[in-house]
Amino acid sequence: MAGAEIEHLIALLARLPGLGPRSARRAALTLIKRRESLMQPLAAALADAAEKVRACGVCGNLDSTDPCAICADPRRTGASVCVVTDVGDLWALERSGAHRGRYHVLGGNLSALDGIGPDDLSFDALIGRVRGSHGEKVEEVIVATNATVEGQTTAHYVADLLEPEGVQITQLAHGVPVGGELDYLDDGTLMAALQSRQRVQ
Amino acid sequence: MAGAEIEHLIALLARLPGLGPRSARRAALTLIKRRESLMQPLAAALADAAEKVRACGVCGNLDSTDPCAICADPRRTGASVCVVTDVGDLWALERSGAHRGRYHVLGGNLSALDGIGPDDLSFDALIGRVRGSHGEKVEEVIVATNATVEGQTTAHYVADLLEPEGVQITQLAHGVPVGGELDYLDDGTLMAALQSRQRVQ
Repeated sequence: MAGAEIEHLIALLARLPGLGPRSARRAALTLIKRRESLMQPLAAALADAAEKVRACGVCGNLDSTDPCAICADPRRTGASVCVVTDVGDLWALERSGAHRGRYHVLGGNLSALDGIGPDDLSFDALIGRVRGSHGEKVEEVIVATNATVEGQTTAHYVADLLEPEGVQITQLAHGVPVGGELDYLDDGTLMAALQSRQRVQ
Repeated sequence: MAGAEIEHLIALLARLPGLGPRSARRAALTLIKRRESLMQPLAAALADAAEKVRACGVCGNLDSTDPCAICADPRRTGASVCVVTDVGDLWALERSGAHRGRYHVLGGNLSALDGIGPDDLSFDALIGRVRGSHGEKVEEVIVATNATVEGQTTAHYVADLLEPEGVQITQLAHGVPVGGELDYLDDGTLMAALQSRQRVQ
């Protein structure tokens, strides 16, 4: 059909999340039509990122510097460390701008189904940081894993692990999403929101 | 947030059709995690295609050879030329395997709204082919533009253009899609299917 180069490109694009075979073909056509404004820059950006981007040796964030920009930022306190499952979650929290401390990326959730045990995740590095391996005086660990079964299993594991270390352990509040309608919420969220109700100020 | 390299990569990925900002971030993360199996091959495939893929000088198809594999295939007849709007349409027809002739890619549809006139599309090259510019003995031109207003405008223009050339001009049949349910079809399609009804054999 199309040339071997195009077929190969489409096959690789179709492996990206969110792109099926049809949208991969559309993407390939768009790329070929915008050879100079999109295709060549994207090839260069991929090669550049593949060469430079590494996991931060402290927190596991992805950046071209090690330690990453967040860990190296003197305005961000090492006293508060937010534990997340994945770098995508770190990015989401950073977009909110609500956390002024640092992060710790576990690299996944505990999952018996997927065969992911404690040795596969960066728990040892987390204990090390709490004990001062990177000169941080960690006072609070905010566990911000997903509110799924695996995420909550992992959260409990982190809490048990850090309990003897004498550090404060907190987790994100459950409740009604801002802008959310009660009618569309599941029972579990409604129950959690009701139980965690707060006095009107 | 993420490093400059990653942000640049996400911005480029978000310009692909089918990828918004959120899915571009997910795609970037997937790429970085599969550095060797996906990211570097994709960078190489993009650079390779950007260097090699060109429009066929005969029909406008995209391939790394010129003339393209379809025009160069001795088993495919130049007596039947299928006129399509875009290379994506050519690929779709090729997947069906129903057309054993060659193609002619117009490069778009006539559109007063988008300011696309006859000079912007490859009508001159089409007339040239019908007159034998590439040694083809074109007997039939199948107009396979989309069944949209712009596509049908373009189809009528092609028919008017080729009418003096003494070549047979046909177009794709309108009707009920195979597997389609009447209840979900629009009135225009139902009307066309009824008017073009065929004797049961």
